[in-house]
Amino acid sequence: MGDYMSEIILNLLPLREDERECFLSAAPGLEQRFFPLIDFEGEPLSLSVPIPTEGVTAVLGNLSPSETAKLSTLRWLQTWTAGVDSYLLPGKLPEGAMLTSAVGAYGPAVSEHMFAALLTLFKRLHQYRDNQLAGIWENRGRVKTLVGATVLVVGAGDIGTRFAALCKAVGAYTVGLKRTPCPPPPGLDEVHTIDELDLWLPKADVVALVLPHSPETIHLMDRRRFSLMKEDSVLLNGGRGSAVDPEALLEALRSGKLWGASLDVTEPEPLPTDSPLWKEAGLLLTPHVAGGFQLQGTRERIVDIALENLTHFLDGEPLRNRMK
Amino acid sequence: MGDYMSEIILNLLPLREDERECFLSAAPGLEQRFFPLIDFEGEPLSLSVPIPTEGVTAVLGNLSPSETAKLSTLRWLQTWTAGVDSYLLPGKLPEGAMLTSAVGAYGPAVSEHMFAALLTLFKRLHQYRDNQLAGIWENRGRVKTLVGATVLVVGAGDIGTRFAALCKAVGAYTVGLKRTPCPPPPGLDEVHTIDELDLWLPKADVVALVLPHSPETIHLMDRRRFSLMKEDSVLLNGGRGSAVDPEALLEALRSGKLWGASLDVTEPEPLPTDSPLWKEAGLLLTPHVAGGFQLQGTRERIVDIALENLTHFLDGEPLRNRMK
Repeated sequence: MGDYMSEIILNLLPLREDERECFLSAAPGLEQRFFPLIDFEGEPLSLSVPIPTEGVTAVLGNLSPSETAKLSTLRWLQTWTAGVDSYLLPGKLPEGAMLTSAVGAYGPAVSEHMFAALLTLFKRLHQYRDNQLAGIWENRGRVKTLVGATVLVVGAGDIGTRFAALCKAVGAYTVGLKRTPCPPPPGLDEVHTIDELDLWLPKADVVALVLPHSPETIHLMDRRRFSLMKEDSVLLNGGRGSAVDPEALLEALRSGKLWGASLDVTEPEPLPTDSPLWKEAGLLLTPHVAGGFQLQGTRERIVDIALENLTHFLDGEPLRNRMK
Repeated sequence: MGDYMSEIILNLLPLREDERECFLSAAPGLEQRFFPLIDFEGEPLSLSVPIPTEGVTAVLGNLSPSETAKLSTLRWLQTWTAGVDSYLLPGKLPEGAMLTSAVGAYGPAVSEHMFAALLTLFKRLHQYRDNQLAGIWENRGRVKTLVGATVLVVGAGDIGTRFAALCKAVGAYTVGLKRTPCPPPPGLDEVHTIDELDLWLPKADVVALVLPHSPETIHLMDRRRFSLMKEDSVLLNGGRGSAVDPEALLEALRSGKLWGASLDVTEPEPLPTDSPLWKEAGLLLTPHVAGGFQLQGTRERIVDIALENLTHFLDGEPLRNRMK
C-alpha cells in the first residue's frame, strides 16, 4: 500500500452497505473514506466531515466549493448534482482538476415533475385546490389539452428530451432548442439551435426551460421575450431560477397574457418571503424538489455514475459527464 | 307539411349557427324548435322552455325527467350527458321511447382530467400548492411515478380505456375490468371481468373508477374493499359519486393506508359543506367538472352524435349509443 496511503478518495454519497462494498472493490489499493453528507432523502446530515488537508485525490459528492478550493492534491470531483456552476467559479477547484456531474440521474424525476405541473395548470387543478381549501364547489371554466399543442423545450438535454417525450406521448408536437444542433431524438419532432428562440416563442403553447446557469442564460426570459409568447400559453422552469426575470414573469401573469406558469426554481432560492409570486394565483410553485432524491431511482443512478467514473479514473480512461 | 306539423323535434343543444343549419338540413320536412338549455360552457341558461304538450317526437338534450315523463308522443331522447340514469327510473320516458346517450363525447376530457389529477397526487403538487399559499418553502418528501406502476381501471369503457392509454403511454401497466370480457384494446395490457375486482385491488398502485350509477355500483368501494387496496396506492373516481362510500374513503385516507385520492364526483353533489372530505389533505377534490364542456371539442362531439342519430332516426336505422 505504501505510496498509495497518501491517495485518499473521499466518498460523501449516501450509500447502502452493498454499494459501499462495490466502491471498496473498485479501488482495492486506495484509501477510501466514507462520510455521507446527505441522507437517502437527499437531506443534509449535520455531520462535520473531517477533511484531510493533504492527500485527497478524488471527492465523490458535493463538498462545499470553499472546501474543494483548499484541496491542493484534488484531481477529480464527482458531484451528485446535475448543475455544477458553483464549482466553475474561479479558484474553487485546483488547477487541472477534473469535474464530472450527475447529469442523466435526474432526467426521470425532473421531466415527470414538469409534466405533472403542466397538466395541473392545464386542468386548473391548482385553482380547484384553492377552491377546495376555501370550501367552494364551482366550475372554473375552460381547460386545455396537450393534444395538438406545440411544446417548446429550451435546453433539450437529458431532462428536456425526456419531458418532450412525455408530452409527445399524450399528443403534443415537440420542438427542442439546444446550443448545438442534432437530429431529433425520439420525443422531439424538431430540433433547432437556441438562436431561433424568438422565432419559436410566438408559436408555442408551452415553453419549458431546462437550462443550466450561465452568463448567456441569465434572464433569458425577460420582458421582451414574455411579450413574444403566445396568448394563453404556459411557462415552465425546471432548470435554474436565473433564466427567468421574476418581475417580467409577474407582469406577464398579471396581464392575463399567460394561462399560467410553474416554477421549481426561483431567483433567488428560497423565494423571498415578500415576493409577490407566492400569492400569484396563476403560478404553481415548488421549492426546488423536482430533481431531488424524492423519486426512487435517482440516488441509485447517481451511485452508478460515480462508480463507473471511479473505475475510469483509476484506469486513466475518459470520465462520463465531464464538465471541466 | 300537413301531417308532419304534429311531429316536433325539440333541440335543446347549444349550437353555432352553422350547426343549426345542419340539423335543419338533416330533417327538412319536420318542425324543429331550438331552445338551448345550456350555453357553450355547459352552464344552464335561465330560459324557461315552452314545451308543446303534444306532438313532440324527439328531444335532443337533457330535458328534465319530470318533463320527459309528460311527453306521451316521445319516441326518442338523445342526451348530452354520458350518464342517463335519471331517465332509466320508472315512468320517466313513455313506453317504447328510445334513449341514446352522448357516451364517447367525454372520453378525452374526463380521461385527461383523471390523468392530470393522478400526476398531481403522485408528485404532491396539491400539497405544494397548500405550502405555497401558506408561504412555506419545504421539501415534502418522496414522490411516485407511473413507470412500472399497475393501474387498475374499474369500468373500462370509452373514458376508462382512454385513461389507461394515457397511463400506459408514460410507462404504466394497465388492467381493465368490465362487465363483459373483450380482447384488450390498445391502452390496456389486460382485460378481465369485474368479478375479479377483489383479486386485483391488492395488486394495483392506482385504482380508477369510471362506473355508471347502478344498483350494483353503489358503494362498490366500501370499507372491506379499501382494506384490500395496496399500501400507498391511489384512488380516483371519475364516474359517479355513489361508487365510493365516503366514510370508508375518509377512514382509508386518515389511516395513512392510501397515498391519496382524487374525486371529481361525490355522494351527494355538491359535497355537503360540513363533509370532512373538504379539508382532507390527501384528497384532491374537483366539482364534477372533468366531463363538462371545459375542454374544447366535447360540445362538438355531442353535436356530431346527435346529428348522426337524427339522420338514423329519420331513416329508421339503428341509433348509436342506445341505452334503452
